[in-house]
Amino acid sequence: MLRWAKAGERVVIGSRMQQKAEDAAKKARDILGPNASVTGMENPKAAAAADIIVMSVPFAAHVDMIKSVAERVTPDDLFIDVVVPLSTAVGGGASTALGVWEGSAAQQAVRLLPPHTKVASAFHNVVSEALQNLNKDVDCDIIVCGDSRETREAVMKLAEEIPGVRGVDGGRLENSRIVEQITALLIGINIRYKVSEAGIRITGLPPRS
Amino acid sequence: MLRWAKAGERVVIGSRMQQKAEDAAKKARDILGPNASVTGMENPKAAAAADIIVMSVPFAAHVDMIKSVAERVTPDDLFIDVVVPLSTAVGGGASTALGVWEGSAAQQAVRLLPPHTKVASAFHNVVSEALQNLNKDVDCDIIVCGDSRETREAVMKLAEEIPGVRGVDGGRLENSRIVEQITALLIGINIRYKVSEAGIRITGLPPRS
Repeated sequence: MLRWAKAGERVVIGSRMQQKAEDAAKKARDILGPNASVTGMENPKAAAAADIIVMSVPFAAHVDMIKSVAERVTPDDLFIDVVVPLSTAVGGGASTALGVWEGSAAQQAVRLLPPHTKVASAFHNVVSEALQNLNKDVDCDIIVCGDSRETREAVMKLAEEIPGVRGVDGGRLENSRIVEQITALLIGINIRYKVSEAGIRITGLPPRS
Repeated sequence: MLRWAKAGERVVIGSRMQQKAEDAAKKARDILGPNASVTGMENPKAAAAADIIVMSVPFAAHVDMIKSVAERVTPDDLFIDVVVPLSTAVGGGASTALGVWEGSAAQQAVRLLPPHTKVASAFHNVVSEALQNLNKDVDCDIIVCGDSRETREAVMKLAEEIPGVRGVDGGRLENSRIVEQITALLIGINIRYKVSEAGIRITGLPPRS
């Protein structure tokens, strides 16, 4: 979010409570300076105000949060699900994942959103610490899944506004189950290697044009 | 296999038929020259002759193949499962995977092998073309899963005999379900990007000592 505001996007932070959203927005503006456009609103209002909705919550809150904004989402909006079904949602560890009936958190979102919503999933494999440290490029690829190529390309472009990031076309939304679970694997790798920002890069792709 | 023989390991190629195994071994020796130690044997004999058994077959043949060698595997052996449960096993596409009751192909192997067999899973995410082109380093990490650290380290060391490869500790064997499914994701990426050797690298790890 900081990264996108820094790149010149207008950002609306949503929260369950208006005051918390405004506080978070003020904190972001303090970091970014007066030219950044960051405001805060209650979730449904934020969803109504935005063209691109980024859903980033713990898995335990995923269903409720989508239900709370679903009727504000229009077919022109782009809905990006970042949520990973980590076992922490049920008191387990962060290095294991839950199976989701629909296949993935992102496919669960499809079921809860209005028909024809453009849903993509992305940004699962990059830790917020890496995104928030504005002094350092992010060293990972963002694999983007979604059922239309147009949607995936829009999200890949958005991803590449973040310095260091390359968007990778991950194919249909059903593949999100793999990309989401990679997060659990990376959390385990962080623990074993005593690091905090393990990510992934895809090798063997053509040079970027 | 070529890579390990080139690195000086003694390699035994197993096949259902003695003649096919010998032919494959001869082909390898023709490529590698007279100093390479590559022989061919029927699968059970090959398993008995080897200290490290690498199981690389289509998923449809996985159970039968393990059953055919299981009684030749001893607790001193290291069994490395490379098999990915691609949907091709049941007539589906290579960019999707099957769910395996035990969690992963590697865990299925544990169930079929003698108790106390040291089982690891690795090498899922590197295509054989990349391994067979001896003129080019392999540009990917090999994520190794297994229930003992000692086993994982032995396999990581073996992986790193291949120029360009870095072994990454993937944790317990149960994580193999994620690593195996990454292969399906990479096959889809190969198709979409019209390449053939997409692999992965883990970023954010400490420099290698």
